[in-house]
Formats: sequence, structure tokens, C-alpha cells
Amino acid sequence: MTRVLVLNTGSSSLKYRLFDGTDTVTKGLVEEVDDHQAALRDVLRELDLRNLDAVGHRVVHGGPDFTEPTLIDDDVVRTIERLIPLAPLHNPANLAGIETARKLLPDVPQVAVFDTAFHSTLPPEAATYAIDAETARKNRVRRYGFHGTSHAYVARRTAALLGRDAGQTNVITLHLGNGASAAAVEGGRSVATSMGLSPLEGLVMGTRSGSLDPAIIFHLHRVGGMSLDEIDELLNKRSGMRGLAGVSDMREVESRRASGDEAATLAFDVYTRRIKELVGAYYAVLGRVDAITFTAGVGENSPTVRAAALAGLTGLGIEVDADRNAAPERGERIVSTEGSRVVVCVVPTDEELEIATQARAVLGG
Amino acid sequence: MTRVLVLNTGSSSLKYRLFDGTDTVTKGLVEEVDDHQAALRDVLRELDLRNLDAVGHRVVHGGPDFTEPTLIDDDVVRTIERLIPLAPLHNPANLAGIETARKLLPDVPQVAVFDTAFHSTLPPEAATYAIDAETARKNRVRRYGFHGTSHAYVARRTAALLGRDAGQTNVITLHLGNGASAAAVEGGRSVATSMGLSPLEGLVMGTRSGSLDPAIIFHLHRVGGMSLDEIDELLNKRSGMRGLAGVSDMREVESRRASGDEAATLAFDVYTRRIKELVGAYYAVLGRVDAITFTAGVGENSPTVRAAALAGLTGLGIEVDADRNAAPERGERIVSTEGSRVVVCVVPTDEELEIATQARAVLGG
Ligand SMILES: Nc1ncnc2c1ncn2[C@@H]1O[C@H](COP(=O)(O)OP(=O)(O)O)[C@@H](O)[C@H]1O
Ligand SMILES: Nc1ncnc2c1ncn2[C@@H]1O[C@H](COP(=O)(O)OP(=O)(O)O)[C@@H](O)[C@H]1O
Repeated sequence: MTRVLVLNTGSSSLKYRLFDGTDTVTKGLVEEVDDHQAALRDVLRELDLRNLDAVGHRVVHGGPDFTEPTLIDDDVVRTIERLIPLAPLHNPANLAGIETARKLLPDVPQVAVFDTAFHSTLPPEAATYAIDAETARKNRVRRYGFHGTSHAYVARRTAALLGRDAGQTNVITLHLGNGASAAAVEGGRSVATSMGLSPLEGLVMGTRSGSLDPAIIFHLHRVGGMSLDEIDELLNKRSGMRGLAGVSDMREVESRRASGDEAATLAFDVYTRRIKELVGAYYAVLGRVDAITFTAGVGENSPTVRAAALAGLTGLGIEVDADRNAAPERGERIVSTEGSRVVVCVVPTDEELEIATQARAVLGG
Repeated sequence: MTRVLVLNTGSSSLKYRLFDGTDTVTKGLVEEVDDHQAALRDVLRELDLRNLDAVGHRVVHGGPDFTEPTLIDDDVVRTIERLIPLAPLHNPANLAGIETARKLLPDVPQVAVFDTAFHSTLPPEAATYAIDAETARKNRVRRYGFHGTSHAYVARRTAALLGRDAGQTNVITLHLGNGASAAAVEGGRSVATSMGLSPLEGLVMGTRSGSLDPAIIFHLHRVGGMSLDEIDELLNKRSGMRGLAGVSDMREVESRRASGDEAATLAFDVYTRRIKELVGAYYAVLGRVDAITFTAGVGENSPTVRAAALAGLTGLGIEVDADRNAAPERGERIVSTEGSRVVVCVVPTDEELEIATQARAVLGG
């Protein structure tokens, strides 16, 4: 069994998980990190790293350059550096993790697994924004999409759950966590996704607005007197559930809604309506849908969100079973009725396992 | 028969049409107007205005204040003035027309008909952007929607074409002109539409981008070094078909595409894909769709766009008939197959007739 260490380095955190095959040997999270090298050294000291075959690194933005998990060398590091303008918050932290791990484990192959890579199969008409083509090219503006390891993993597991060949299965995957995105996966390939150049676009999220009229930015600047930085902060940190309901945690939104809170009710309705619209949009893109799969914190744990997002879609052959949906199960499962033409699934995501799997694949294991 | 004069005043143009009942007595367009009062005086001198019962004014933005066509008095003028920040390009010109007409025709009732009014029935979950609620309230940020007179007219005509009661008919209306928007009309009421705070959001247009990741604006500013005004100009004037294909006129895009031009082909694909996604989204919102109706310059005249936008949707019960769709007809017509569960229609829009009709309704005629 191959041992793979998966590292997910945030700006002030370090998440790690050591796999032996698909089994987790150890995992942990270090927070309030200011010295990545010291933090990682401490972690490595505690781990049994004999027979370590690879380190798999989560990298948020692969830009136009990386369409697959990639064995890391100096060139790869330089390219990830050049992508920092596309992901100024994430790529620098991911790079710090990579450089530290290469220093501390110089003999172990290191693999970068990109959040964007799974969406590199988007057809041009889905990846292209309708702006001046030369401006877009020069500034590398296109739809990249994110949560790719999650969408890939969940779509594959869905086919397995249905006992079908993944290459013949069309799935709409709904990753609903603090960040949230949807994807249309046609025979294993992403053909549509809701996040774009950045993780701000698309669904309503914990603190992010998702899609909105771009003119709102001009309006808030000119009429509202806000600076561009303030608007950026507004849309990323004070919007979404937090902006509408006053709180970003969906459990709290649901409990306030249950006790009649109007703002929480509206927030919930906006959140689920946006999901419903994207399900319809991706239904049209795919033409035929075999399954719709919910994953991540909200998707796995909220029967209320699942039921509301898919309410009224029997005309599309989508029918959630109230009892199955409400059952307090946790594993991979089907929550639609027997008669539902589209199977509605819940599949707990496991991005770290997927990173380990992909890292192993790069090394030919 | 009641006579109504309809005025559509742009920043440098004046469009007029005199109705007798539903018949057009005269119409015309004055361009390069710099003195609205002089221009309108010239127009009025030429017209036979005996028995004029009303003047109907097109007003682009009714904001949160106007949900219906409204008899104009000083208060109404002041309110339209207060809405200028929401429509800095359009409302001032519309106001110039109103004030001039009131001066020149003081004894004739004047009615304002708003592009936004038809969408005032949007449910809160469709009208609300997921941003900080207090910031939105203070700056009057919500989805207003536009092309309302066109969507209203076309949805009603569609029900008539189908021989159905409009109050029982669900229609997806696709207004595809230089500007473009979609609406979901449920029993005569707008429940979803693609333009938002401004006419920039939604579908790809002649020179406008439609929806995009709001972070693209931050990126073009920070990384591309563009000012906010430059980005505004980019998204409104150098995007859409013009940005992708180099030309905004769909006829030219189609002819270049037909001769193998790659940029025009991509532009066409992006344009039609976005329509397809919205059709799916509004299908999900409506649950049951009776008809999909194309209107305005592109929608009425381009079988190629209609066919591409609805290709592959037989799973949704939507099937365009190749012969009917390609037939060189011009009137209200059905272009789907006999077997298509959803009837696909073409209905030439007539916003001025609708304004006359609504103005008359306000006056109880
Ligand atoms: N039982 C539950 N019901 C509703 N929401 C839940 C439940 N459990 C967790 N969540 C939500 O899941 C979200 C976090 O999702 P998660 O996938 O862990 O986030 P991240 O995107 O940070 O990985 C939180 O908003 C939390 O409210
Ligand atoms: N036969 C045609 N095929 C394709 N597009 C057409 C055709 N005729 C007109 N159009 C397009 O219609 C658009 C203008 O639509 P229109 O509704 O007149 O505009 P506006 O929004 O300014 O009222 C132009 O882009 C033009 O290319």
C-alpha cells in the first residue's frame, strides 16, 4: 500500500492527512500558523513517514497552465508563482507549503493537485466570458471553476453508487459548504460549473454573494461612495448568508427560519432558489441527467436545503423522497423516490482522499 | 377610438408613434437631438393631434417606486428624478421628454410606462441579491428587470396564439435585440428575469457582457490596471458580440460564422449557450412550461439562433421544427413540432403598442 501525505496549506492554517492506501493513518489541523516551515517541521516530526511515496499538495488555482495533477519541480513552482495574480489569497499559502515540504522531504516526490484542473474540460462556450477577447486573453480572464477535486470525486462515487459506468453517467454535483459550487459532469468530464475566474461567482455562499449584476459594483462605488476594496470585502466577507441573515452558518440560518425569523427565511429562499436555477440550467446543458448529488457541509447534512432546492421539479423527473431525505444517515445514499427518473444522491466528499488518489496516479501507482 | 401618442426619448433621439386604437397613424424617429423641446415641437406641429386622449412615455427605470403605469403629475416627475442614480443614462432623457410634452400639451393626460414595472411581481427570493441587506436597502440595490413592456406584451400574445387563458399559461419569453433579456412569466406575472439592477446582467448582448464573475472587475482593476470607468465602458460597449466576434450585429456574426470565422463561431456559441442555460433555469423555476417565445431583432429573425439555443432539449419536451423555424414568415407563429410538449413561438414585439395600451388602461379606457 502506498503512503501519501496530503497537505492543504492556508494562509494561517495547515491541514494534513497521512494515507496508507485509502486508510487514514493520522490527520490534523494546525491553526494560527505564521511560520509555515516551523509548523510543518513540527507536524512531520510527529508522523511516521517511513515508506512515504508522495506528498500531495492542494493548490487552488492552476490557471490556464495546469489541467492535471502535476509532479512538482522548479518550473512548476515558478508557474504557480506566476498564477498568484489570479488567486492572491490562496496560491501564496499553497506555495509556502510546497516549498517547505520540498525542503524538509527532498527525496519524496511532490504532486500538486489543482482545484481548477477538473474543469479544464469545460467547452470554450462555457469557459469564455463575453468581454473583449483581447482584454480577456491579456489578463487570463476565463471561467476556471473550483472545488474540482470534490466534483470529480463525488461524480465518480455517484456512478459507483448507481452501479453505472462513470463514463456513461451524467451528474449534476452540488458542493454546498462554506464555499459552494455546482458542476455538470457529462461522462466524467466537467462541462459546466458555477464558480468562474474566482470562487466568488455562482451560488450563494456562507459569506460570498455569488453571481450578481456587475453594475452593482459601479453603483456602490458611484452612488454608495464605497471604494473598490470595500466592495470586494463586502462581496466576499459580508454577503451571502451572513449578509442576508446576519449569520453564515446554515444550521443557525435554519434554526432562525424555523422560529419565524424573516431575514433568515429570505436568505434560505434566495440560497435554495439559486441552486434550483442552476439545476435547471445544467439539466438543459446536459440534455439527459442521471443523478443529482449533494455534498459538503450543507449538502450532506441539510435535508431542508435539499428538499427546498429540488421542490417542484417533478416535471424534470426529479422527486425527493421525504423519509429517505430526512433519515439521519451519514454515508453515500439515495434520497429520491423509487419512481424519480433522476436519482438524487448524497455523497460525503473527501477532497484529501481524492488528492491522494490523484497524486498516486501521477506517480503511476 | 382613443388616440394615444407614444414617446420614447433617448439621450439624443426621439421616437414617436401616434395610435388610433391599435392602428398606427404616423410614426417617426428624430436623431441627433440636442434640444428636446425644439425637436418635440417640430414633431407635434406635423401631427394631427385633435382628440388626443393621452401621451404615453416610455421610462426605463421605475425603481422600487413604480410598479404600474402611472398618470404623471409633479410628484411623479420628482420621483423619476430621484431614480436618476439608478439609470443615469436613461431616466434624464425620458424626463426631458416628459417635461417638454407636459409644457407643449398641458391639457393632455400624460402616462409614464416603466420598463421595470412588469417585473415588480418578482418574488423576494428572485429580486434579492445576496449582499449585506442594509447596504442593499440604502442603495436601492435589487433586481428590477427591464424590457418589461415587451415581456408583458409577448407573453400575452403567446397565450392568445395558443388559444389559452393568459392567467393559466406559463411562458419563457426571450427578448433578443441589441439588448437581450429573458423572463419567466407564470400566469401573466413575471417571476424571474435576467436583467437586474441595470440592463447589464444576464444574457450576452450586442455590446454588453451579460453576467460574469464580479471578481473580474477587481482583477481588471488590480492586475489589468484599468480604471472603474474603463471597465464600465468595456462591459457595456466593448463586450458581448462585439467583444468576442468584433461586431455587434447578429447578421454579421452569423455570416462570418457561416464562412468559418472562429471568433464569430465562439461568439455565437457563447450567446446561444447562455440562452439555453436560462431556459433550463426558468423551466426549473416554473415547474411547468407551456411555451417559449422568441422576440426582438434576433429572436424574430434568426432561425439559426433559435435552433441552436433550443438544441438538445427534447428531454425537456422542447423540439423545434426545422422547416417551420426556417420558413421566411414574419408574423406570430409556432415553430415547434406537433409533438413538442412545450410550444415554441415567435412573436414580433411591439413595445409602443403596449405602452399605448397601458396608457389607455390607466385612464380607464
Ligand atoms: N446539519 C447541518 N445542517 C445544515 N448545515 C450544516 C449542517 N452541518 C454543517 N452544516 C453547514 O456546512 C457548512 C460548512 O461546510 P463545509 O463543507 O464543512 O465547509 P468548507 O467549505 O469550509 O469545507 C457550514 O455553513 C455549516 O453550517
Ligand atoms: N435576419 C436577422 N438575423 C439575425 N439577426 C438579426 C436579423 N435581423 C435583425 N437582427 C438583429 O437584431 C438586432 C437588433 O434588434 P432590435 O430588437 O431591433 O434592437 P433594439 O434592442 O435596439 O430594439 C441586431 O443585432 C440585428 O443584428
